[in-house]
Amino acid sequence: VMAPHWVSRWPWWLFRASPGWRQTACTLRAWVEPRRWPGSFQGAGVASPLARRGCSSTSSRLPAVVLTQERCAVQRLPFSTVSEEDLAAFECIIPGRVTTDPEELEAHNVDWLRTHRGCSKVLLRPRTSQEVSHILRHCYKRNLAVNPQGGNTGMVGGSVPVFDEIILSTALMNQVVSFNSVSGILVCQAGCVLEELSRYVEEQDFIMPLDLGAKGSCHIGGNVATNAGGLRFLRYGSLHGTVLGLEVVLANGTILNCLTSLRKDNTGYDLKQLFIGSEGTLGIITAVSILCPPKPKSVNVAFLGCPGFAEVLQTFSTSKGMLGEILSAFEFMDAECMQLVGRYLHLACPVQESPFYVLIETSGSDAGHDADKLGGFLEHLLGSGLVTDGTLATDQKKIKMLWALRERITEALSLDGCVYKYDLSLPVERLYDLVTTLRAHLGPCAKHVVGYGHLGDGNLHLNVTAEAFSTSLLAALEPHVYKWTVDQQGSVSAEHGVGFKKRDVLGFSKPPEALQLMCQLKTLLDPRGILNPYKTLPSRA
Amino acid sequence: VMAPHWVSRWPWWLFRASPGWRQTACTLRAWVEPRRWPGSFQGAGVASPLARRGCSSTSSRLPAVVLTQERCAVQRLPFSTVSEEDLAAFECIIPGRVTTDPEELEAHNVDWLRTHRGCSKVLLRPRTSQEVSHILRHCYKRNLAVNPQGGNTGMVGGSVPVFDEIILSTALMNQVVSFNSVSGILVCQAGCVLEELSRYVEEQDFIMPLDLGAKGSCHIGGNVATNAGGLRFLRYGSLHGTVLGLEVVLANGTILNCLTSLRKDNTGYDLKQLFIGSEGTLGIITAVSILCPPKPKSVNVAFLGCPGFAEVLQTFSTSKGMLGEILSAFEFMDAECMQLVGRYLHLACPVQESPFYVLIETSGSDAGHDADKLGGFLEHLLGSGLVTDGTLATDQKKIKMLWALRERITEALSLDGCVYKYDLSLPVERLYDLVTTLRAHLGPCAKHVVGYGHLGDGNLHLNVTAEAFSTSLLAALEPHVYKWTVDQQGSVSAEHGVGFKKRDVLGFSKPPEALQLMCQLKTLLDPRGILNPYKTLPSRA
Repeated sequence: VMAPHWVSRWPWWLFRASPGWRQTACTLRAWVEPRRWPGSFQGAGVASPLARRGCSSTSSRLPAVVLTQERCAVQRLPFSTVSEEDLAAFECIIPGRVTTDPEELEAHNVDWLRTHRGCSKVLLRPRTSQEVSHILRHCYKRNLAVNPQGGNTGMVGGSVPVFDEIILSTALMNQVVSFNSVSGILVCQAGCVLEELSRYVEEQDFIMPLDLGAKGSCHIGGNVATNAGGLRFLRYGSLHGTVLGLEVVLANGTILNCLTSLRKDNTGYDLKQLFIGSEGTLGIITAVSILCPPKPKSVNVAFLGCPGFAEVLQTFSTSKGMLGEILSAFEFMDAECMQLVGRYLHLACPVQESPFYVLIETSGSDAGHDADKLGGFLEHLLGSGLVTDGTLATDQKKIKMLWALRERITEALSLDGCVYKYDLSLPVERLYDLVTTLRAHLGPCAKHVVGYGHLGDGNLHLNVTAEAFSTSLLAALEPHVYKWTVDQQGSVSAEHGVGFKKRDVLGFSKPPEALQLMCQLKTLLDPRGILNPYKTLPSRA
Repeated sequence: VMAPHWVSRWPWWLFRASPGWRQTACTLRAWVEPRRWPGSFQGAGVASPLARRGCSSTSSRLPAVVLTQERCAVQRLPFSTVSEEDLAAFECIIPGRVTTDPEELEAHNVDWLRTHRGCSKVLLRPRTSQEVSHILRHCYKRNLAVNPQGGNTGMVGGSVPVFDEIILSTALMNQVVSFNSVSGILVCQAGCVLEELSRYVEEQDFIMPLDLGAKGSCHIGGNVATNAGGLRFLRYGSLHGTVLGLEVVLANGTILNCLTSLRKDNTGYDLKQLFIGSEGTLGIITAVSILCPPKPKSVNVAFLGCPGFAEVLQTFSTSKGMLGEILSAFEFMDAECMQLVGRYLHLACPVQESPFYVLIETSGSDAGHDADKLGGFLEHLLGSGLVTDGTLATDQKKIKMLWALRERITEALSLDGCVYKYDLSLPVERLYDLVTTLRAHLGPCAKHVVGYGHLGDGNLHLNVTAEAFSTSLLAALEPHVYKWTVDQQGSVSAEHGVGFKKRDVLGFSKPPEALQLMCQLKTLLDPRGILNPYKTLPSRA
């Protein structure tokens, strides 16, 4: 049974403007600190709420998150429990970086959506893959379960323990190993924060091939482990294509070095692919080699109002034809999304009210050519009635403002009450039908049924809000949403992954033969099942 | 010990202009026939030699190819041999498509480079994945080895049997399943010929994300199984990114359906990745779902002469900056390559003689903008002395002529004598050093030492020719070439794969832990080792 995404009405970031927050949020500072990028993170000023969304806190104003084991029907597997001897062994491997303080552990036990809570008693913060190897060798021998954790920004409960798994954080593995400014190939440790890497490569006229709302907290290792999609997917494609190499520590402590920095390498099976998207269940990614595209010289963002979803689709087709190789994002949101970001975040709609809005980003190497293409495109859209109103941004500040309308929808939704979240891949032509159908189907049971997402990738974020959690609403949603998705040959998890939350809906998108092979791979690579247990694979497999 | 690439001086295509070839090459017709694309292949006129390079023949004018088992130290594994009962069982599964005629089998037993020969006694040509499943189920039970074969255009002896493995050809699995002209997602059977798919999607204003010299013969299933690179890699990236789904039949006959047509799907481990580049050793790919990019409205090719390799590199850096998103290929060849295509194929050099030549292709959505970018770029190159002479093609015919200079180097080399071929990934800055070093190192032992390839991908094709095969020349080349490559953190196989030929040099590019995991994956997926034995994995593993 799927649990709803219960989101507190008062996430910590609402307090950021309060003059006293540094005092009140004392427990926050302690665990934010290790996420710092050497020399620059703290100096970067106040991070935007979403850029820091990995954070959660123990502020007394927040309602407690119920333990996952109490909320869900899940049984602890027969792993050992951490003993004093284990702690001593860890202290030997990573002196001073073994944490057992419950307050410090709190933020690592709860996910950022505040829907899952584990009760881990120990947090380990290695700095090197050798340390990770020694830790896993010990855990493997002792049959101790391990929860690898990056920025803890996942959406499916994959990054926090379910019971008392040891939390192995990559936060201190935050060094850039090398960057080749001819090829654009970056090699870095898994704990580097995405936004910091972006800044680093941008200084050398490159960009990261991925970007996402959680960039200020998420780790590149976590991005790779969850095969993160995000905002640049349309242009630069999947991490299966852009990740060139990985270093991974296997369950028994073996270091698997596939950290090549080559665009092409056909020497045997492409082992790194196994770990991309395996959510830490097959091995712990400790370093990443990734291909960065050149930094575009010109970036434009158009924000447009469309009279209907048919027009959104036609706008998309037209953009592919007329913008061609400079199209770098095609996002959409419906009118209800706009109302929510207006109501809760006081963001003003920059165009006339419309049933749908699209955000189109172009990036290219010649500002004049790009402006010319975009101008012709927008003229065509307005002339043909596909679009009723629009605004265009070329300066960085306005571009950020327009992106905020799309990126902060998640945040606005979380302020509207209890949120039921779905992240679906659908044929683009049917993408919005589910939202319409569901609105009719649910009637007044739901406060809001909204649709937005990466239209260019066929990725719908469907969200339903209600005043409070109700089993009847959940029953009206599931398995209905999943069945509808599968009837359209869609996927029940487009980019958020499986984690703990979706492991029992995998079967909607994958045949039994595939699930069986997944389990066999898990057994091969992690015969004792110590790596991120209770995640990714079906509980009944 | 690595075998040299012994290439006949008289490949069959030299006879294509002879008026009597249809009579003399009677055995050829028989096996060309199943490669026909319904309704169009035969009508497409005389294919260019390279476009048909998968073909080889039994013409009496060609010297016989020595059996691989006689030439190399390799022992037949204890598989069963095909019995009359087995043939009857196959005849039941695929009536009329079981071939035992030795003449017809000949072309399937020998690879196109004419360096490897198996002695298979039976060729099976299923039409559906169900038939493949029934065949493999039978072979698995009976412990019969199977050699999957696509267009038989591989460069490393991976597509022909080593002993008497049953040849399972995908030639009749040549149906397009679906094409979505909004998303550009093509779903087709594995035996579709790449060039035919190109034509098919181009009619709907898309292109295939890959292109290679063997396009007229190679099968898309073979392309995926070998993770083919080719000429569009620079722009559209690896098949690990562009292949969206696969249907695979496992060794025991299980059909694994991962044939989704979605850009994003994070439901569990991405199993299809296991089979991309596994060369038919983990399963037989029977259908492919692949993302096709929109057909560019404007294509230009510049062919330029450079005074030195440093200038080639600077031209490359400059092209990335000034051509940006419209750069679609950056190939290079040295002066000796040009001399060879001139001497053997009578292709004229279109520019002044130079130490190096580069071929740069742009493709974009606006001819005016592209011409503008390219014009500025070429002006800069000539003005700064990076380039001494150049020619630009915008019409299809001249573009093909310029591409032929680069694409037909392989062919010219094969006419120069015995060819030792290496396909290496190297940091682009050191790419040509190996050629220079090797020329000095080999002295007069070699006729020619040439370097060409996909510079934009850091992929060097290093070829050495000699009058005849000599063990002393081989000893001067290997392991020297591999060691040099590894010293630069390169890969000993960039895009050609491992096959039979390179299985024992894998260790140069992969650590023992990786080789061990590869063997474990092989054992998991093909416990009896019946799929493409003697290939991909080290013989001593």
